[in-house]
Amino acid sequence: MARRIDIVEVGPRDGLQNDPADLTVSQKLEFISRLEEAGVRRMESGSFVNPKAVPKMADSAAVFAGVDRSKATRHIALALNEKGVRRAIDAGADEINFVLVASETFGRRNQGMSPQESADMLAQCAPLILEAGIPLSATISVAFGDPFDGDVDIAVVGNLAAQAQRAGVNELALGDTIGVATPWEVRAAIERVRMEAPDVYLRMHFHDTRGAGLANVAAAVEAGVDVIDASCGGIGGCPFAPAATGNVATEDVVYMLERAGFETGLDLGKLIETAHWLETVLQHPVSSSLSRAGAFPTKKVPA
Amino acid sequence: MARRIDIVEVGPRDGLQNDPADLTVSQKLEFISRLEEAGVRRMESGSFVNPKAVPKMADSAAVFAGVDRSKATRHIALALNEKGVRRAIDAGADEINFVLVASETFGRRNQGMSPQESADMLAQCAPLILEAGIPLSATISVAFGDPFDGDVDIAVVGNLAAQAQRAGVNELALGDTIGVATPWEVRAAIERVRMEAPDVYLRMHFHDTRGAGLANVAAAVEAGVDVIDASCGGIGGCPFAPAATGNVATEDVVYMLERAGFETGLDLGKLIETAHWLETVLQHPVSSSLSRAGAFPTKKVPA
Repeated sequence: MARRIDIVEVGPRDGLQNDPADLTVSQKLEFISRLEEAGVRRMESGSFVNPKAVPKMADSAAVFAGVDRSKATRHIALALNEKGVRRAIDAGADEINFVLVASETFGRRNQGMSPQESADMLAQCAPLILEAGIPLSATISVAFGDPFDGDVDIAVVGNLAAQAQRAGVNELALGDTIGVATPWEVRAAIERVRMEAPDVYLRMHFHDTRGAGLANVAAAVEAGVDVIDASCGGIGGCPFAPAATGNVATEDVVYMLERAGFETGLDLGKLIETAHWLETVLQHPVSSSLSRAGAFPTKKVPA
Repeated sequence: MARRIDIVEVGPRDGLQNDPADLTVSQKLEFISRLEEAGVRRMESGSFVNPKAVPKMADSAAVFAGVDRSKATRHIALALNEKGVRRAIDAGADEINFVLVASETFGRRNQGMSPQESADMLAQCAPLILEAGIPLSATISVAFGDPFDGDVDIAVVGNLAAQAQRAGVNELALGDTIGVATPWEVRAAIERVRMEAPDVYLRMHFHDTRGAGLANVAAAVEAGVDVIDASCGGIGGCPFAPAATGNVATEDVVYMLERAGFETGLDLGKLIETAHWLETVLQHPVSSSLSRAGAFPTKKVPA
């Protein structure tokens, strides 16, 4: 039996949030629908944060209202505080992903919170989410490095993970928000978080800024992590800010894992088609490798 | 003590050979000199093959004649047959790298040989090289997949490796010429080759066509391989392999390995400068991640 790896598609949120293009609600819904056609069953479909800070996600309630509820897809909403959590619940989110931050300066700039303040906010919001019967996950952002403060102390990540577990988080993602990690530190972080928060499921969230995105995915999968965030096309970067690149691309992750014998449940051809469709809608090239190179006959040998 | 990983710079050969730009000999020599400034001590500086098939390397004798012999750099010449070997020896190559091919159709198109014919050619040429006192290495190209024939049988790779060892090859590279491999098959191939050719040193040659280039480097390093091919800027491709993109980029490999605590002896800042210089000479962007994103404070913790 092939081991199953679940991909959480983050293109409609982390991808589109940072893209220069302004998509309409109906274009976002078409993106979501194409991803569902490709087999995606869990995706970040929007974010309930300050619309002035993140204007591209201001229409998330409309997106959640428009998704096809006859599908089995779990639509995840991102939130940073109580107001966002209430809006996400009202919008009918199937799951809420909270964002903790592992470093001071990025935390202040991204969500106006220190690491401990983000953990306190989670502890405050978690009961609301859990009482509504909604699964609660969290991402520790900049878990491997902060663009302003530099390296992040693994002890801070471990401490946040322990607090997340106490707050009732079911699944915790470690986010390499700025794409600096290497497979060796990925393994070390996984090990540390497992010690500090043994009851949470682990998910990993990598950006491919410095080329090691898939290396980090492979390291995480080998360390036993079964859930990986990725965005179709690898969107999420800003073409006008060359240093900011996107998430690991869903089709690249799927190619590597399926060729190695893992099962993702995703259709590589349809993902590549969706990446090409995205290029027409976003009006710029996407960064995934598979959308340029195409697939190669897939080995189906369990890893 | 940090573990040492040696990077063989292949930009001046595998990179330039496949680039649309036509560099002059003096531009090639400046490239080589900049690489030496960045700490490169071993590089593929040219190729002695049919100039009609590979016109960009027709000036390799002039390049070898022009390199600064006061430097400690070992300049490697690529050859495919006896004529090439004699030209490489005459040119003063410090080392000759022979190319074996693991698959039929690619072999026919690339060098007009089947896998066994390439091994026979090596056996015929090796004494010439060894009697001249020149270290002999070899690369098994398309060791993980052929763009025309599909997957490559690992038994063919193992068999070629055994023949290479018998011919007197000191170091053997497994080449993922078209960038299809994954870390899992990289490990399997390394294990197989170690069984069949236990006395050769292993080197790995990856292209980043499908995003897994650094993942494969990490897997190889963890499997104990100490020598990795890479090209500054990630330049390269393969004229006989549609959609193939460049080699893994030297600066990306160096970033990942140095951050993880390995020692490469290379200066990341100077490599990035050289990648930017290449963009002005080649008159197109290069594909490396570090040349866009820049470095990040490097962790220096032995892996």
